[in-house]
Amino acid sequence: MHSYSSPIKVGVAGATGYAGQELVALLSRHPHVNVVAAMSSSADSAARPMPRLARVFNGQLEPLDRDKLAGVDIAFLAVPEAAAADLGASLVHAGVKVIDLSGAFRIRNDEQRHRWYPATHALPAGAAYGLVEHYRDNVKRASLVACPGCYPTAALLAVLPLANAGVLDASAGVIVDAKSGISGAGRTPSDRTHFSENHGSVSAYGVLGHRHVAEMEQEIGTEVTFVPHLVPLDRGILETIYVKTAPGTTAERISDALHAAYDAEPFIRLTGDALPEIKHVAWTNFCDIGWRYEPSSRRLVLVSCLDNLVKGAAGQAVQNFNVVCGFDERTALL
Amino acid sequence: MHSYSSPIKVGVAGATGYAGQELVALLSRHPHVNVVAAMSSSADSAARPMPRLARVFNGQLEPLDRDKLAGVDIAFLAVPEAAAADLGASLVHAGVKVIDLSGAFRIRNDEQRHRWYPATHALPAGAAYGLVEHYRDNVKRASLVACPGCYPTAALLAVLPLANAGVLDASAGVIVDAKSGISGAGRTPSDRTHFSENHGSVSAYGVLGHRHVAEMEQEIGTEVTFVPHLVPLDRGILETIYVKTAPGTTAERISDALHAAYDAEPFIRLTGDALPEIKHVAWTNFCDIGWRYEPSSRRLVLVSCLDNLVKGAAGQAVQNFNVVCGFDERTALL
Amino acid sequence: MHSYSSPIKVGVAGATGYAGQELVALLSRHPHVNVVAAMSSSADSAARPMPRLARVFNGQLEPLDRDKLAGVDIAFLAVPEAAAADLGASLVHAGVKVIDLSGAFRIRNDEQRHRWYPATHALPAGAAYGLVEHYRDNVKRASLVACPGCYPTAALLAVLPLANAGVLDASAGVIVDAKSGISGAGRTPSDRTHFSENHGSVSAYGVLGHRHVAEMEQEIGTEVTFVPHLVPLDRGILETIYVKTAPGTTAERISDALHAAYDAEPFIRLTGDALPEIKHVAWTNFCDIGWRYEPSSRRLVLVSCLDNLVKGAAGQAVQNFNVVCGFDERTALL
Amino acid sequence: MHSYSSPIKVGVAGATGYAGQELVALLSRHPHVNVVAAMSSSADSAARPMPRLARVFNGQLEPLDRDKLAGVDIAFLAVPEAAAADLGASLVHAGVKVIDLSGAFRIRNDEQRHRWYPATHALPAGAAYGLVEHYRDNVKRASLVACPGCYPTAALLAVLPLANAGVLDASAGVIVDAKSGISGAGRTPSDRTHFSENHGSVSAYGVLGHRHVAEMEQEIGTEVTFVPHLVPLDRGILETIYVKTAPGTTAERISDALHAAYDAEPFIRLTGDALPEIKHVAWTNFCDIGWRYEPSSRRLVLVSCLDNLVKGAAGQAVQNFNVVCGFDERTALL
Repeated sequence: MHSYSSPIKVGVAGATGYAGQELVALLSRHPHVNVVAAMSSSADSAARPMPRLARVFNGQLEPLDRDKLAGVDIAFLAVPEAAAADLGASLVHAGVKVIDLSGAFRIRNDEQRHRWYPATHALPAGAAYGLVEHYRDNVKRASLVACPGCYPTAALLAVLPLANAGVLDASAGVIVDAKSGISGAGRTPSDRTHFSENHGSVSAYGVLGHRHVAEMEQEIGTEVTFVPHLVPLDRGILETIYVKTAPGTTAERISDALHAAYDAEPFIRLTGDALPEIKHVAWTNFCDIGWRYEPSSRRLVLVSCLDNLVKGAAGQAVQNFNVVCGFDERTALL
Repeated sequence: MHSYSSPIKVGVAGATGYAGQELVALLSRHPHVNVVAAMSSSADSAARPMPRLARVFNGQLEPLDRDKLAGVDIAFLAVPEAAAADLGASLVHAGVKVIDLSGAFRIRNDEQRHRWYPATHALPAGAAYGLVEHYRDNVKRASLVACPGCYPTAALLAVLPLANAGVLDASAGVIVDAKSGISGAGRTPSDRTHFSENHGSVSAYGVLGHRHVAEMEQEIGTEVTFVPHLVPLDRGILETIYVKTAPGTTAERISDALHAAYDAEPFIRLTGDALPEIKHVAWTNFCDIGWRYEPSSRRLVLVSCLDNLVKGAAGQAVQNFNVVCGFDERTALL
Repeated sequence: MHSYSSPIKVGVAGATGYAGQELVALLSRHPHVNVVAAMSSSADSAARPMPRLARVFNGQLEPLDRDKLAGVDIAFLAVPEAAAADLGASLVHAGVKVIDLSGAFRIRNDEQRHRWYPATHALPAGAAYGLVEHYRDNVKRASLVACPGCYPTAALLAVLPLANAGVLDASAGVIVDAKSGISGAGRTPSDRTHFSENHGSVSAYGVLGHRHVAEMEQEIGTEVTFVPHLVPLDRGILETIYVKTAPGTTAERISDALHAAYDAEPFIRLTGDALPEIKHVAWTNFCDIGWRYEPSSRRLVLVSCLDNLVKGAAGQAVQNFNVVCGFDERTALL
Repeated sequence: MHSYSSPIKVGVAGATGYAGQELVALLSRHPHVNVVAAMSSSADSAARPMPRLARVFNGQLEPLDRDKLAGVDIAFLAVPEAAAADLGASLVHAGVKVIDLSGAFRIRNDEQRHRWYPATHALPAGAAYGLVEHYRDNVKRASLVACPGCYPTAALLAVLPLANAGVLDASAGVIVDAKSGISGAGRTPSDRTHFSENHGSVSAYGVLGHRHVAEMEQEIGTEVTFVPHLVPLDRGILETIYVKTAPGTTAERISDALHAAYDAEPFIRLTGDALPEIKHVAWTNFCDIGWRYEPSSRRLVLVSCLDNLVKGAAGQAVQNFNVVCGFDERTALL
């Protein structure tokens, strides 16, 4: 863990996207942070004001400037993965710590990464996968933190304690049925994100071919069937996860594995039988996890939910930042 | 009223927009209609399928073909006003009756029309303003019917009986505060129609400068202050209309004027004190009108609502068509 | 098939619920039907007007009257299952054909039925399960038609052709993840149906314990894991169905089985790779079915969707009615 | 301004309603506050958990206990006005400062107050109307702060600077057309707050008879015509306000009056021509105000919006608390 003099100078590349705006808002209320650069690579940034941030962020939005960014203590990247791959590598090389929100640095296996993220490079030395609750020690000494994708965050937080405890029947695979708010599709208008195409509707997309599968399979080590759906709301993801347990698994064993993993974690709330709902996590950094289990059939249904722009993006990034800097993990997040 | 042999051959120009699709659906269930041409002028029409119309409309979508369109009995135009202005004039010239859903032929005063619809021409002989409930006789013998705009339809149906009865204090003007679903903004994606920009939000637009004002003022004959708002729903408009009555106006007088105008109308439902709601008119051709009146202050608040794609567009067009052809006005609309 | 003189006298018990209102609306536009009785058992029916049905249904709402109901040709029951069980049995006994929308007559196995619907009785002779596309002949000669539940309708229409063709790996079970609009929860206010608890949220309920499981397992003959979710919309269900195919199953085999079952069906639309969306079936009697298949892993994902109040309730009831009476099945439904 | 030793002991009566939960969340993150009592008067409070507050508020919910409440430094009341009237008076008598969110203490004129809030009493000495931006000095030394209603807050913040500057034509009155999210109707289920009755709909209520009119007229001193509407969203109010200006009023005059009033205010953002939207203020304590003016007709349209649960309730209460205690007004609110 590096030692910085407070306030820490941070820069944000990609400040006008939904995750970028959320990041600027969270960092603006962080008592130990000075946002010295909020940059947007989009040519039209001047034409896309950020009225939500008025009186919250008092700095100026500016065009992306690599040199200026190289002068900060810690840089947050909320840009597409091709840009992040280049920018992240050069910043690490310049000695700037990087917290990346894109998919550029999540997949360690080169073949898998190139399949899903063709424009990216091998991970730099000291890169950590920023699922804090499971890799906190790696994050503390990382040169670059790859924040997990929104869908993998919800799925892995629910499944990893069980996989690690040997409770799952790995041969049966894991099915993740995700329901996501539409802010996850970003700020660029399209037929898919048009209001009238989504109001009163639900649609599946990326069936059996979403790139977040690679990230989930990397961490869980078993086949993952993943189907994301757009549901008519703005912020939040709820995942319903279907697994089979190993023979002889009791309800206690499942509960114990989850509680052992998370009772001391500030942002994981286990709801047990009372299943979580998006409404309770929206606009927060919490991931809520509940489950129902039928021992006779060894069917286990987990429900995991979070806000895709907070715990699934900007909030998790700030949580990683807090770990990197040695602050209380909850700073600016409660 | 012209006499046609059944089924009547109709064509639709602009079949892939939201109003156009609604029109094709309604005409497909009309027992006396044969949709011989469903045309789209958009280059990308092939890339924008109409899954909602499968098994409903069994014809083929085709590119806009003026010659073919000139061969139908009655042509519906659901294209932007510049295209409608040209197409409408040439079809009338060719002896085809036209039902136009655009703004091209709504404003009789040339100066006003050019101000709001610069690319349009003088109205052809025999053009009628298709507010059936008030101009049915004109519509019957029209060469071209200009269907009213969605906002003016709701406002005029509420206000005209009172203006005609001399019940309004014209010097006070009319204030129309409209809440509209987002399908009214059409099918083209934009920042303004992006899901995440509208979910959980309300926004005003076109304040004091919306072109539907000219249409309302043409019919009411007094100053109209009009502010439309986007509300997070798909279909429907609710207008809250603030007027002052002439001195001495009683509650009975108001009620009598409205009931005299509409008790025999199949698509106007007066709800009196029980104010109408969008939910009750969505997916129907009804316009529901309610009101509250305080005689001591002469303040009258009218609430008028309809489905912008049906009574505010395609349904009203079919109602006009039924009048032109001499069918029961309710055909295909109940 | 019985022969009736037109128009057929029908009665509706439970006309004020959401499905009941939809039923009255559909029957009111049916050219061969006379709705002679629209009854509500709820004490407060007078206090719950049906503004949506004004000018659509011109009869009067009246309290439930068994004797009057026994005088109709065909009775529709849209009341809770305990009331439907009693009423249905007595009407059949009186020679009135019954179309029941409740769960009272869906489960043939007495033990299963009593477990999930305790207040019901053995099925009367001549009862048919009204999934028209699969049991049309039974429906034609039925004394009573038990309309399938909304969730089973969507699931069975997708899965039955594959189960019947021997394409499924039955040992792997069937997982049905359903996303439902909130009208499915009925018209009675509760914490669960409160607007602010659902807007911007998704919630799972009835995990591993919903009574529609019994109905699905009865028809499919294998273990069904079913998790319904409430999503923030009014009308519509989308089900994502996860199955494994039998070894050697090709993509063609799957496609052939579905097309053989449904190409001649007026209300089933196969969308293939272009997955269906609720928006395209809302307010219609269609069930749209699409799928994606990965032969190497034998993972098949089906997506099935319908409007829970139409194809999942009132529309399917009218479709059954049309079959019983020998009308074109599409009458009043297109 | 009283002097307290930090942390300040606060109690909340009515902690389970939507405003009460928001209040507990805001106070839990306040660095100078210790929430020693979170009380609910509702008998069923145990049955209505607050999953959103887990890990946010670490205390226990308890039944209402007047004696315990009399032991805090400052009490927040988020209970209905009859309970607030009694509780507030007795707490002030006991020397506890009170921040009340109900309507019990907003109307100074006894006749008006009894008309709209029959179960209330005369205001105690030292009661202040807690519209901080206009009555900060009164609030500083108040014994009890009556937080303004959600609708009046938005309307008064927009209109008061203009009324105070003599810019309005008072004889023309003020028309306030409000669009409100449904959380404003509270947490108790009813037909009016049922999800399916509001999704896809808009409805007006309380036309010409809402009790917030009295509060607006008290502050503005002229006739206010007020029509609130429910729009299908959870949190937020947008008000469109129609006024006439005094003869000769220029655009600059209007702009100057608003900027003079608010440029130094931390929670008022003037957006000028770029009209505000609910999305930009939801989950914040900001009130955003924009306007459009036509000098020739002297028509001025103001648009004002805020989050009804924050600036319209709990946030404004905490802002008042900060003023009473001498803290930076933004504490816990940015």
